[in-house]
Amino acid sequence: MIYLPTAVRNIPTYDVLAQDGVEAIDDHAMNILETNGIEFRDDGSAAIWRQAGAEVTGHRVRIARELIRKLIATVPTEFDYHARNSDRTARVGGRNMIFGPAYGTPNLIDLDGVRRQATAEDMRTLMKLHHVNPVIHYNGGYTLEPMDISVPHRHLHMVESSFLTTDKPIMGSAQSEFQAQDSLDMAKIVFGEEFVDKNVVMTAFLNCNSPLVWDQTQLESLRLYAAHNQALLLSPFVLYGASTPVHVLAATAQIVAEVIAGVAFSQIIRPGCRALMGVAPMGVYMKSGSPTFGSPEVALAMFIFGQMARFYGIPWRTSGAKSGSKGDDLYAGYDSILKVYPAILGGCNLLTHCGGTIEGSLCISMGKLGADGQQMQNFYTMLKGVDWADMDAALASLAKVGPGGHFFDEDYTREKLPFLDEIQDNERFESWVATGSKDAGTRGREWCRKMLSKYEEEPPGLEASIREALRDFVERREREIPT
Amino acid sequence: MIYLPTAVRNIPTYDVLAQDGVEAIDDHAMNILETNGIEFRDDGSAAIWRQAGAEVTGHRVRIARELIRKLIATVPTEFDYHARNSDRTARVGGRNMIFGPAYGTPNLIDLDGVRRQATAEDMRTLMKLHHVNPVIHYNGGYTLEPMDISVPHRHLHMVESSFLTTDKPIMGSAQSEFQAQDSLDMAKIVFGEEFVDKNVVMTAFLNCNSPLVWDQTQLESLRLYAAHNQALLLSPFVLYGASTPVHVLAATAQIVAEVIAGVAFSQIIRPGCRALMGVAPMGVYMKSGSPTFGSPEVALAMFIFGQMARFYGIPWRTSGAKSGSKGDDLYAGYDSILKVYPAILGGCNLLTHCGGTIEGSLCISMGKLGADGQQMQNFYTMLKGVDWADMDAALASLAKVGPGGHFFDEDYTREKLPFLDEIQDNERFESWVATGSKDAGTRGREWCRKMLSKYEEEPPGLEASIREALRDFVERREREIPT
Repeated sequence: MIYLPTAVRNIPTYDVLAQDGVEAIDDHAMNILETNGIEFRDDGSAAIWRQAGAEVTGHRVRIARELIRKLIATVPTEFDYHARNSDRTARVGGRNMIFGPAYGTPNLIDLDGVRRQATAEDMRTLMKLHHVNPVIHYNGGYTLEPMDISVPHRHLHMVESSFLTTDKPIMGSAQSEFQAQDSLDMAKIVFGEEFVDKNVVMTAFLNCNSPLVWDQTQLESLRLYAAHNQALLLSPFVLYGASTPVHVLAATAQIVAEVIAGVAFSQIIRPGCRALMGVAPMGVYMKSGSPTFGSPEVALAMFIFGQMARFYGIPWRTSGAKSGSKGDDLYAGYDSILKVYPAILGGCNLLTHCGGTIEGSLCISMGKLGADGQQMQNFYTMLKGVDWADMDAALASLAKVGPGGHFFDEDYTREKLPFLDEIQDNERFESWVATGSKDAGTRGREWCRKMLSKYEEEPPGLEASIREALRDFVERREREIPT
Repeated sequence: MIYLPTAVRNIPTYDVLAQDGVEAIDDHAMNILETNGIEFRDDGSAAIWRQAGAEVTGHRVRIARELIRKLIATVPTEFDYHARNSDRTARVGGRNMIFGPAYGTPNLIDLDGVRRQATAEDMRTLMKLHHVNPVIHYNGGYTLEPMDISVPHRHLHMVESSFLTTDKPIMGSAQSEFQAQDSLDMAKIVFGEEFVDKNVVMTAFLNCNSPLVWDQTQLESLRLYAAHNQALLLSPFVLYGASTPVHVLAATAQIVAEVIAGVAFSQIIRPGCRALMGVAPMGVYMKSGSPTFGSPEVALAMFIFGQMARFYGIPWRTSGAKSGSKGDDLYAGYDSILKVYPAILGGCNLLTHCGGTIEGSLCISMGKLGADGQQMQNFYTMLKGVDWADMDAALASLAKVGPGGHFFDEDYTREKLPFLDEIQDNERFESWVATGSKDAGTRGREWCRKMLSKYEEEPPGLEASIREALRDFVERREREIPT
């Protein structure tokens, strides 16, 4: 199986703001936390803040900037994200960047091109595809929302399927405290309790409800994952203009305040636990309230957010190939690249949604999933940047070829082929017609079928004893948890 | 008619290379010109180089860097690109950027979604659409290749139609010396001889045949346009890996050598005449030789080329929304943004191909033309960057809305709506189905129809005497030029 390890950035980051602009955003964010304050809507969490020295009134927490700075100083700038196959362990933070799957869509356009509700089987199919996709560095999570399993039991199947289908790093569930606990218990079955306590084997999404609310459900999960030393993706749910002011810089200051409050809180729970600034802003269509993607304001906000993450020395997670399109059309392509480009140049460390998301996160298109995967390899190649090595040999080939020649036959050309997208059709119209006039979605689905066959040739396997222990755990918990 | 004036960049440029890297590329380019030399395959042009002090053997010209630097010192960094309606005069160079149409495709997918050969009528339809597209700053050229007109007469109809359909700045033909002369003569009819001699009223494409050949046809046109003080788009035809080495930095050094030799030559003909570094690299599909778009190597080369243009203080032209796709699918969207993003962040001053190009420049899709136009407005908005004004008001609205609220009802939100794409569909799946399940191409074609109606409500008009003089000129030249 071809596998591309963690991308190591060898191109500069793009800064929209000058240093004094970055400092001004920081100042505004700190003012928000000191003056407006932020709500931690959970008695236990509010009490923890009071004890740490914040000013707490009910659930409203006002935090002095000195306290914030002291707390976030312990967040690691880089960490290893462990896979059960240590060859697949990824590195997050600093110059390291990893690509990951989409999650949470209740529908899919399947391998036959039919739109329907997603099942647990579809969720596993996606996990298999992420396993054989060379540039997907972690796997699992709700790659699809399995609508054929009752809501309180879904996380069990999600985590079990992750361990069964892939040996890449996986995700845990954070939708409630008991789901988080079950995810951690299952990780301990696979990795052992001591390993889990010392190492990151799971990431978990914790959403701040913008503006300025961390709610009880998310805080309970946050406390549990932080206590277990796992990596937190602290992600305000940002709809630019709905949950923030329609002002790029004010919105960024608000988001920074929200995420930094969450990061600081995690360090009270367990100093040194891994936390990522998880901002993945979306726009909003004012008429329907639906999310939008690829808008210029969101791109600018993403670049600035990357700068803020570097300012604080905290890894940055954002989201990639999303679209509001209903199929594999132009806008599905536009939106995806419009989201991924700022992530790549802005210095993202962990990119979610690297394949297939359409309908504003309500559907996965299998055609787009395949095609997006190639785009991620395109960006992976771009991250490598330029190389002065072999400059003389290349210029010598120019001297040899001379005016009016071509480079096809040069040894140098054959050795250093440029990146070639496996799904893109570069034939002329007539050849394209002769091979069936297949659009990109159709070709993307064909690629998925081919890759699934490859998966079945070389599945990752899992020790029988672990497999049985996981199965026993799932069966016991299904009996215990009311549906 | 809504019209967005020349974009003025208010975001930083993105530099892939450090300053010493830029200097190294310059050094390699100068070495190529001094040592390998470059061919000017035209006796007259070679003689001009000899007289200017270059070492000339046959058509091979070797030029000392001191001579190159002396010659290019007179190229203006900025200039006005005059329209016959002075309100539409655009500014090119420095922080100024303009968007322009595609050109030269012999086929189109028309307003009914049918693929067929292009006609003169289609060429005019595109000119009308560019006229009403707010973000298209110049118009005309072979917006389509009119296949129903004999090749030697096409330029006459192209230039006449440009003046008849639009009052934005237009393009001339440079496919042969007599076509260039006719274009200039027609411009003189519209603007007057003296105005044309003093001002840029036309841009013209001059292609270097990479590697390292300027041929007679192009040189004759180049000399004519330069003598008439019009703006030259000096554009090596770059297929990365076919006409250059497969090495981003070596390829860039070669391209710089080619284009700088052309620029320097233009300044011998008429010091101070406007010239642009016109590089718009494409990749190549090794199997068929077809061009490819959106590859990571090409993106890196574009960023670096932007840096080189700034290093020399010469405006940069590149090309935008192109794709090898056969329709309005995912790759048509991916490729377009993958090309435009580096142009925007890399500091492009004149962007061609801002709408519709598919099949690697062999077809225009009217659906994509409409949709691409919205993407250009998206980037136009991004170029404005962020604004610290109103920061206090925006943060005050956050304080007022408070934790858990929303910003829809704030006066501030209603005043400062984010950019909204007119063609994108942001409805939920069910609403999209209820309105006909239209994909982006269909919606793009509908937008074109709507805009053509707008055009007919308010066409730009042209004085009857000028219209008649142009008609007389075309009729006389059609009699004179054998088909």
